[in-house]
Amino acid sequence: MLQSQLFTKTKKDAPKDEISNNAKLLIRGGFIYKEMAGAYALLPLGMKVVNKIKEIVKQEMDAIGGQEIIMTSLQRKELWETTGRWDDEKVDVWFKSELKNGQKVGFGWSHEEPISDMMKQYINSYKDLPIYVYQFQTKLRNELRAKSGILRGREFVMKDMYSYCLDQAQHQKFYDQTIQAYLNIFKRVGLKDDTFVTFASGGAFTQFSHEFQTVSEVGEDTIYISREKNIAINEEVYNDETLEKLGVKKEDLEQVKAIEVGNIFDFGTVKSEQLGLKYNDAESKSIPVYLGSYGIGITRLMGVLVEKFSQENKINWPKEVSPFDVHIIGLSLDNEEVTKLAQEKYKELTDKGLDVLFDDRLNISAGQKFADADLIGISERIIIGKESLSSQ
Amino acid sequence: MLQSQLFTKTKKDAPKDEISNNAKLLIRGGFIYKEMAGAYALLPLGMKVVNKIKEIVKQEMDAIGGQEIIMTSLQRKELWETTGRWDDEKVDVWFKSELKNGQKVGFGWSHEEPISDMMKQYINSYKDLPIYVYQFQTKLRNELRAKSGILRGREFVMKDMYSYCLDQAQHQKFYDQTIQAYLNIFKRVGLKDDTFVTFASGGAFTQFSHEFQTVSEVGEDTIYISREKNIAINEEVYNDETLEKLGVKKEDLEQVKAIEVGNIFDFGTVKSEQLGLKYNDAESKSIPVYLGSYGIGITRLMGVLVEKFSQENKINWPKEVSPFDVHIIGLSLDNEEVTKLAQEKYKELTDKGLDVLFDDRLNISAGQKFADADLIGISERIIIGKESLSSQ
Repeated sequence: MLQSQLFTKTKKDAPKDEISNNAKLLIRGGFIYKEMAGAYALLPLGMKVVNKIKEIVKQEMDAIGGQEIIMTSLQRKELWETTGRWDDEKVDVWFKSELKNGQKVGFGWSHEEPISDMMKQYINSYKDLPIYVYQFQTKLRNELRAKSGILRGREFVMKDMYSYCLDQAQHQKFYDQTIQAYLNIFKRVGLKDDTFVTFASGGAFTQFSHEFQTVSEVGEDTIYISREKNIAINEEVYNDETLEKLGVKKEDLEQVKAIEVGNIFDFGTVKSEQLGLKYNDAESKSIPVYLGSYGIGITRLMGVLVEKFSQENKINWPKEVSPFDVHIIGLSLDNEEVTKLAQEKYKELTDKGLDVLFDDRLNISAGQKFADADLIGISERIIIGKESLSSQ
Repeated sequence: MLQSQLFTKTKKDAPKDEISNNAKLLIRGGFIYKEMAGAYALLPLGMKVVNKIKEIVKQEMDAIGGQEIIMTSLQRKELWETTGRWDDEKVDVWFKSELKNGQKVGFGWSHEEPISDMMKQYINSYKDLPIYVYQFQTKLRNELRAKSGILRGREFVMKDMYSYCLDQAQHQKFYDQTIQAYLNIFKRVGLKDDTFVTFASGGAFTQFSHEFQTVSEVGEDTIYISREKNIAINEEVYNDETLEKLGVKKEDLEQVKAIEVGNIFDFGTVKSEQLGLKYNDAESKSIPVYLGSYGIGITRLMGVLVEKFSQENKINWPKEVSPFDVHIIGLSLDNEEVTKLAQEKYKELTDKGLDVLFDDRLNISAGQKFADADLIGISERIIIGKESLSSQ
């Protein structure tokens, strides 16, 4: 793409009300636009990064047997009342509205209920299981505060996967596969060494749940890690009992701040019992389905990458999620020979199948071009100017 | 994909409250799931059709210089008040809610306002224009009635494009390009001969607007067409003045029912003036930007294709949007040789890069398999059974 055609331009400053580093840099680079606190539009550069993250996640979800769907944002009050999660006292992030006929509706902040209710249409016999489905969904959550840029928004893209299994054993097998798939994802997007499978509180159904936490100073969570033993514990379950159970000592662990980039829940059969989601086993006995849910914040991941891999005025995208493969920066383009050389390079790389951004803008200083390129942060950069002529 | 792995199954009946033919067939085939009136989830088969439609639309939008973005669903009251479109008396399809601090928010039913307001960040000089942006957005509209399946929903996917031009002349050039791009799209998805550029009422800014109407008995609109002259007029502007202006006679026109599949609006400079979206020309004079908007209902298109190309119990997807390229139907799979032959065929086609659904299900009668295949409606079918062995 010719940079002269890109409608966004970099900015010297972010909006004054923007306090998070990730949103500041992404706004200045032209990746996102702030519609209101906690709600950001994706601009062409942001679309490209998010689409690359989604493609990696999709590949890993497909590889473990996931089938892609997309549920609705509109939610039925009656359904969520069945599981006790309509009440604002229980779930404090609902956006609610009503149809013309007065019927109350909510906007999807999570989708365990509608997906599981839908599965009653497709699960009858033990032969129908297991089923794994996932979606990339725009979640709407009425957060009290939204100060962390795209790390915690009122509107954001999440990949959520749901597993429907015969029993705990079948569930456990898929659960373990998903942990590996998630680790693959975090490795591929560039968060390799700093992302830990972390023991966290398990809620009603299990002693522990697993979170994926990426070490970062701006994280909202505190975790205790041992890089050597590859173990991590959320402070909410950091106690003598947990340490003993996991066989680690206090002195082996380092306290760090971290951002939750993924989570895995074991719902057991509780939600299926509430919703009446059952299958008949080989003896025609009716048995509730075993449910797991697995989330990754897609737009949050973009924010985490910025928090991890940026300096002042500069983003450094990992290669696999870089908005373009190569940034050609043309300097002295008033010189015909230089322009010809740059255009040839652009054509050569594009013909190879690379996605190239070519800074073909005239009357922009080299300093400004480099400053823009720093903010855009493409993983590979080729500079073509007068010096390139002699090095031919 | 192995059909035994597909979690959806075809259904003999649609929900009793479903009265539209498109939704009935799509629910029965396992393409969509009805969450509530006017809100449907996309299941794996439906995702595949919609993704193929989106890819065609994306290619055509990119070809005319469109840059893809995605705005937020959450909308600011203050912004829409600026153009007088927050009031429920003016716009009767708003879903509204509020933040924890009491601030009112709406959910996007259209995006002219936020996109144009955003453009104030990126448009300063005449050198910045033209700009063309588009998005695939889940629109939320609080329709009074939702009885037409996915033809008119409360939640649906729309491709909307917005053009920002220097003046009427630059606008007109792009407007004409977009008409051609839209015709390409309708041709490619299989609606070639029955889709007409239709003269409709122009609203406040122009005498006529252009709609794209596909002839269909279930259409909500009445239009008058001449296939010979390739002209169509919406009944709302069907009068002597229009006929004279377009140089057609009443007796040349046929009255038909039609579904609006796309529309194009010329907003002139009115909205830019309301929002303060201006550029400086070469003499530093401040001039309001010329705005056009261009919509295609993506999920609606899927519904139109079903209405056009289905019979009772049977969908016939056009090749370009078929959920799979080929459906291999394996019969008598208790016979090892037949199974081997079918598996070889599946591998052969998959290796060629085709996307194949292989009905590998055991203990399902041939009659049931054919009935299922009819409802799924893949454009090419290969049957492999005992007869295939002798024909080797």
